[in-house]
Amino acid sequence: MNGSLGNKEAVKSKTYTDDEQAVRDVRKLLIDIVRQNGGGHGGSAIGMAPLGVALWRHAMRYNPANPDWFDRDRFVLSNGHAAMFLYTMLHLTGYPHMTLDELKMYGDLKSVDPETGKWKSTICHGHPEIEVPGVEVTTGPLGQGVANAVGLAIASKQTAATFNREGHEIISSRIYCTTGDGCLQEGVAQEAMAIAGHLGLDNLVLCYDNNAVTCDGPLDWIVSEDTNAKVRALGWNVIDVFTGDHSVTDIVAALQLAKSTKGRPTFINIRTTIGFGTSTAGTYKSHHGTYSDEDAALYAEADATSPHTISKQGKAFFDSAVDLGKVAEQDWNARLDLYKRQFPEEGKRLDDRISGKLNYHDLLQNMKVPDTIQATRQFNGHIFNSLMVQNTNLIAGGADLWNSNQMGDQTPRIFDARNHTGQVIRYGIREHAMASISNGIAAYHPNTLVPITATFFMFYMYAAAGVRMGALSHLKVIHVATHDSIGEGQNGPTHQPVELDSLFRAMPNLLYIRPSDAEEVIGAWQVALEVKGKPSIISLARDPATTKIPNTKRDNVAKGGYVVVEAEKEAAVTLVSCGSELQFAVAAAEELSGKHGISTRVVSMPCIRLFEEQSEEYQDQVLGSAQHVVSVEAYVSGMWARFCTASIAMDSFGYSGGGSANFARFGIDKAGIVKKVTGLVTESTRKGGRQRWRLLK
Amino acid sequence: MNGSLGNKEAVKSKTYTDDEQAVRDVRKLLIDIVRQNGGGHGGSAIGMAPLGVALWRHAMRYNPANPDWFDRDRFVLSNGHAAMFLYTMLHLTGYPHMTLDELKMYGDLKSVDPETGKWKSTICHGHPEIEVPGVEVTTGPLGQGVANAVGLAIASKQTAATFNREGHEIISSRIYCTTGDGCLQEGVAQEAMAIAGHLGLDNLVLCYDNNAVTCDGPLDWIVSEDTNAKVRALGWNVIDVFTGDHSVTDIVAALQLAKSTKGRPTFINIRTTIGFGTSTAGTYKSHHGTYSDEDAALYAEADATSPHTISKQGKAFFDSAVDLGKVAEQDWNARLDLYKRQFPEEGKRLDDRISGKLNYHDLLQNMKVPDTIQATRQFNGHIFNSLMVQNTNLIAGGADLWNSNQMGDQTPRIFDARNHTGQVIRYGIREHAMASISNGIAAYHPNTLVPITATFFMFYMYAAAGVRMGALSHLKVIHVATHDSIGEGQNGPTHQPVELDSLFRAMPNLLYIRPSDAEEVIGAWQVALEVKGKPSIISLARDPATTKIPNTKRDNVAKGGYVVVEAEKEAAVTLVSCGSELQFAVAAAEELSGKHGISTRVVSMPCIRLFEEQSEEYQDQVLGSAQHVVSVEAYVSGMWARFCTASIAMDSFGYSGGGSANFARFGIDKAGIVKKVTGLVTESTRKGGRQRWRLLK
Repeated sequence: MNGSLGNKEAVKSKTYTDDEQAVRDVRKLLIDIVRQNGGGHGGSAIGMAPLGVALWRHAMRYNPANPDWFDRDRFVLSNGHAAMFLYTMLHLTGYPHMTLDELKMYGDLKSVDPETGKWKSTICHGHPEIEVPGVEVTTGPLGQGVANAVGLAIASKQTAATFNREGHEIISSRIYCTTGDGCLQEGVAQEAMAIAGHLGLDNLVLCYDNNAVTCDGPLDWIVSEDTNAKVRALGWNVIDVFTGDHSVTDIVAALQLAKSTKGRPTFINIRTTIGFGTSTAGTYKSHHGTYSDEDAALYAEADATSPHTISKQGKAFFDSAVDLGKVAEQDWNARLDLYKRQFPEEGKRLDDRISGKLNYHDLLQNMKVPDTIQATRQFNGHIFNSLMVQNTNLIAGGADLWNSNQMGDQTPRIFDARNHTGQVIRYGIREHAMASISNGIAAYHPNTLVPITATFFMFYMYAAAGVRMGALSHLKVIHVATHDSIGEGQNGPTHQPVELDSLFRAMPNLLYIRPSDAEEVIGAWQVALEVKGKPSIISLARDPATTKIPNTKRDNVAKGGYVVVEAEKEAAVTLVSCGSELQFAVAAAEELSGKHGISTRVVSMPCIRLFEEQSEEYQDQVLGSAQHVVSVEAYVSGMWARFCTASIAMDSFGYSGGGSANFARFGIDKAGIVKKVTGLVTESTRKGGRQRWRLLK
Repeated sequence: MNGSLGNKEAVKSKTYTDDEQAVRDVRKLLIDIVRQNGGGHGGSAIGMAPLGVALWRHAMRYNPANPDWFDRDRFVLSNGHAAMFLYTMLHLTGYPHMTLDELKMYGDLKSVDPETGKWKSTICHGHPEIEVPGVEVTTGPLGQGVANAVGLAIASKQTAATFNREGHEIISSRIYCTTGDGCLQEGVAQEAMAIAGHLGLDNLVLCYDNNAVTCDGPLDWIVSEDTNAKVRALGWNVIDVFTGDHSVTDIVAALQLAKSTKGRPTFINIRTTIGFGTSTAGTYKSHHGTYSDEDAALYAEADATSPHTISKQGKAFFDSAVDLGKVAEQDWNARLDLYKRQFPEEGKRLDDRISGKLNYHDLLQNMKVPDTIQATRQFNGHIFNSLMVQNTNLIAGGADLWNSNQMGDQTPRIFDARNHTGQVIRYGIREHAMASISNGIAAYHPNTLVPITATFFMFYMYAAAGVRMGALSHLKVIHVATHDSIGEGQNGPTHQPVELDSLFRAMPNLLYIRPSDAEEVIGAWQVALEVKGKPSIISLARDPATTKIPNTKRDNVAKGGYVVVEAEKEAAVTLVSCGSELQFAVAAAEELSGKHGISTRVVSMPCIRLFEEQSEEYQDQVLGSAQHVVSVEAYVSGMWARFCTASIAMDSFGYSGGGSANFARFGIDKAGIVKKVTGLVTESTRKGGRQRWRLLK
C-alpha cells in the first residue's frame, strides 16, 4: 500500500490553492459519475486526479478547440478502464463535444431511448475510442496503450528529426502515457518499453499510477519485482514521486525533469491511492465499485454541493485551458509560417507529410512482373523497396525475420537512436509490440503515416491482439506476412499456420489478402495503399515459387475474386483458390478438363472480404453455376463453405518437410486436387443431387 | 560480440580432457549434420556445446532408457530452432530411439521414399516435438519454452511440497531451460520470468546462450538493455559465465551454485560464440547457414575423420550416461519404496497423482442445476469449486479477473512463494504466460496434472499462441473463458469477442465448447475432463442469465449438437445456436411456430468439432430437412455456413452498451431472430428454391 489512505480530516481544509482545488473538483465529478451509474472504474481515476491536473494544466500543449492540431502533445490512457479520468479532463478543459450530458452517458446501458425510439449512443464509451476528439488511441486491452505511445513517440521523433531545422523546432510534440499495474505486467508493454529505451525516445513519458491494487486484490499477490530497476535496465530515466495523492507540484517537477532528459524515455513512478479519500480507498473494491453518500460529500464545496457541479475556483482554473490552447496553436502557426518562408522546400514536404500524400499509383500500374519463377515473398520485396524509395510517409519494420521476409537491405534507412530520420525500424523479436507500436504510428495524425510490419504469418498470432486494435480503430497499417502455409517447409507445424486465416478473415474491418503470384502481389499493394481506415495483411508464400499465372490481373484483386480459367463448355466444377495453391488449381483444372473430361473453371480469390463487397450479380457470375464449387487452400476450411459445396483443405497441423513435399503429403498439389475432384464427381454422379458441404479427403 | 571467435590454432591442441573432447565431438557431429543438409540451425547449437556437456554429463539426472522416469530433471530448449543441439545430446547420451539414421533425417525434405513408396517420417523435426522421447515440450515460437519451463517448475515444486517428507526428498526434479536472445525479447518470456521470480521457483535454471547474434544481424541492432539487471529486478539469482565457449567446468560451477540457491530461480548468462571456431563464427550467417570443408575438419580427430563419427574418448565419456541414468533411477526406486513403507497414505496419494486419477464422473452426473436464473459463468464457478475440493491433480489459475470470472474464493489453496502446496496460481495480468505455463504443467508427466486457466474470452487472443501450442502438443489444458460475447456489456468492443471463436473453432485438436445453460456447463466439464490429449475452451457468458433451457442435456454436449426443440409438424426452419443465444433461439422458435405458423426446430450445438465427429446419419438427423437452416450466434459467422443456409450473426465489432441491450441492438435477441427469419421465409417463398448461404440482416 502506498501513502496514506486519506481521510476526511486530511482531505478537508479551509482554502486551497488552484491546483488543490482542481484536484478536489476532478475527484468530486468522478465520484458523482460513479454514483450516478452505481459503479464504473472510478478508483484509479480518483487516484490519478493530481496527475490529471499536472498534465492538463501544467505540462501538455494542446488546444481544446482543435483536438487535431498537428503539433499537439499526445495523451494515451493505457489503463483504458479509467476512461472517466480522460473524459473528465477533456470535459473540464473545454473540449466542446465533451459535455456534461455525454459524461452522464458513461456507464449507461444504452438501450433504445424511449423518447426518440432510437438507439442511444455516446462518445463516453466503457473504454476510450479513437473516434472521439481528444482520444488519441482506443485502449482497453492492457499493455497495448504503452506500445501505442511508443508508436506515437516514434512518429513525432521521426517527423521532428526530418523537418526541424536549427532554431526552428517546428515539431515538438511529446507523448504522455498513463499506465496502471496491469499494463506493466503485460508482455506487449515490456516489449514496447525495451524498444523505446533502445531507440532513445526522449519525447515519451510513461506515468505509472502505482496504486498497488488490481482487480482481484493487492498488487503483491501477483507482483514482487523491483519495477524501477527493471525499467532502468531497459535504458529509461526513472523518477519517483511519493506524493502522488496530493502534490501536483511534485508531479509537475517530475514532468519537467522528464522534458529536460535527453536520449532516454522517462518513467515516473507515482505512488497513489486508489479511490483516495473514499471509504474503499486502497482496496480492490475501489477498482470498479461505487461510493457512499459520505464519499460524495468528501470533495463538495460550499458553492458546489449538487452532483456534477464543481467549485467556481476550479472552474475558472480549468476554463483558462481554452485560451492557453488557442495561444499555443497560434504561436505554432506563426512559427510554421516563418519556417515555410525560410525553408520553402521543407515546408512543402511537411505539407505533403501532414496530408499523407503517397506515390504508388503509377509505380504499381507500370510495374513489370518477372518472367522468372519467384515466390510471392520475393517479388513483394521488390515492390516494397520501390515504394520506400518514393514515399517518405511509409514507416516500416520487421521482427528479426527481415532477411527471410526478403524485404531487402534497408541499412541506410534505419531508424535508431543515432538516426531518427530513418524509416525502417528493427523491432526485434517482439511481434505484439511491433503491431501495437504501428497502430500508434498510424494514429499520430489522421492519414499521415502508413506503418508497415513484417514477420512470418504464423507469428502474427503473437501480434493478433494488436492487429485487432488496428482494425477496431480504423488505422491503416499494412502487415506483410510471409511463409504463410505448410509450404513454409522444414520448420514444421510450429511455424505453419493452418487456422490463423480464419481469425483474420473473420475480423471486422481488416483485409486479409492472399495473392497467388507477382501480378496479384502488385494488386494487393494497390488495395492496401488505396483503402482508407482499414489495416491489411498481405499474405505471402515462401514456397512454392511460380511464374505469372495466366490471366491473373492486378486490378482484379480489388474485386476480391475473379475468373482466371474459363471452362470450355459449361463448367461441371469451379475451383476457388488463392495464394500458393492457385497454381496447383490451374494445373489441376487443365488435367481435369482435358484428360478427365470434367469441364473446370478456376476462380482466383485473393480476398474473400472484398469479393463479398461486390454485387450479388458479380459474385454469382464469378462462381458460376457448376454443380461443384470446390475451394482449394492449405488451411483449415472455415471461411469457404459459404461459397462452396466442398473444400480441399487441411484438417490437421502441418509437418516438417519440404514446402512442395508438404503440399503433396496433404493432397493439396495438382495430383491431390485431380484425385479429390474426380472422386467427388464420380461419387456425385452415382448419388445424384447436390450434397451438403464437406471436406474432401 | 562475446569472447573470441575462435580459430583453428585456438581450437586444436594435442590432448583433451574428457569434457574438452566431448565438446569437440558434439561440435563435429553438428557440423556434419549441417553440411549433410546444406544448412539448418547449427550455429547456436555449436556455441552451446559446452553447456550441453555440462548439463547432460554433469548436472542433469535422467535415464536414457526411461525418458519418462517421474523424478527426472526436465530440459526445455526454448530456442527450439537449435533442435539439433537437443537431438545430438539425446543421441550421444544413448536415448535408444535417437539413432544416427534419425539424426540424418533432420533437415531432409521428407518426400515419398522411392524405395518404400511411403512418406518419410522422422523424430528429428525442424523443431523439437513433444511426442519424441526425451523432448519435454514442443518449442519453436520464441519465448514460450521459457514459460513451459516455469510450468514444469511449478509442477515439480508443487508435487515436491505436497509429497516430500523430512529426510525423504522423493521429488527433486529440477528444470533446465536454454534460451537465446530471441526468447528473452518476447513478452511471454518476460511475463513468465516475472511469475517465476514471484513464486520463488528455485528448482528452475534458465541458461542464456548469449551469443549476441540474431537472424538478421548483431544483437545490438535490436537490444540495448542490461539483461542481468532486468532479470535480477524480477527476483532471480543471476550468474555470469564469461567462458561459455570452452569451459565446461565454469558452467558446471554455475549450475551447482544455482542448485544451492534457495527461494529464487537462477539465470545463467553464458557468453558464447555462434558457430564457434567455424569460418562464419560470430555472425548471423552462422545462424542457419552451412559450413565449409575447412570447418568440417576443425573438430575431427585421428580416430574420427569421416562424417558423423566421433572420437573413442568422447564416445566412452557419453556412453557412461546410460549406466549413470540406470543407477539414478534405481536409487530413486529404492528411496520410493522406503517412502511408501514409511508413509503408506502419502505413497498411495502419490501413485494417484502420478497416474492422474481424477474424480469427476459421479460428481458431475449427480450435480443439480439451479432453479434460479444464472449466467453460465456463475454456475461454472460452482462446478469448478466442487471439482477443486475433490481433485488435487487440478492446478488452476487466473489472470487477475478471478472475481469477474466468478471462480470463487480460493485463498486457502493459493500456490505462492510461501505455500508451494497450493493448487491455485495468481498469474497476474499475463495471459500468454498463463497459457504457456499451463502447457508446461500439463507436460510435467503424461496425464498427471490438469491445468485450468481463466480470464475473459477476449483476452485469450493475447494467449492464443500458447493455446495453439497446447493443441499441437496434445496437452490437456482447460481454459475457462467468461464474458464471451457482446453480452459482456459496457466495457465495449475492446472487450467483446466477435471473431475469436473462428480461430479456436478452426484450430486443430482443440475443443471450443460454448454451453447455453448450467446443464450444458456440466456437460462441457464432462467433455473437457474426459478427453485425452486435447485442450478445451469452455466459453461462458457474463450476460444474459437464464434458467435451465428445456431439453438441454449434459450428456449430449459430447455429441456436439442435438435437438432441443422439435417442430410440431415438418420443420420449415431449423435454428442452430449455442451459448447465450440459445435461449433467444428457443423463445423465437416458439413465436415463429405459434404466432407466425413457421414450424421451427431448434438445435443446440455447444461444440461444432464434436458434432462433426458424429456419424453423417446423426448429423443429418439433427439438422433435419428444413429448407432453411439458420445459425444464431453473436459472432461473425464463419464456421456455420457448412451446416446452414443462412446466419443471424455479427458483421462488425460490438458496442459499449448493456449486455441485453447489445443483443437487441444487433438484432440477435428473440425479436431480432423472429424478424429475420420471417423475412427470410417470406422472401424465399416469393423467390422459391434454396439460395446460397447468406448473412441475414
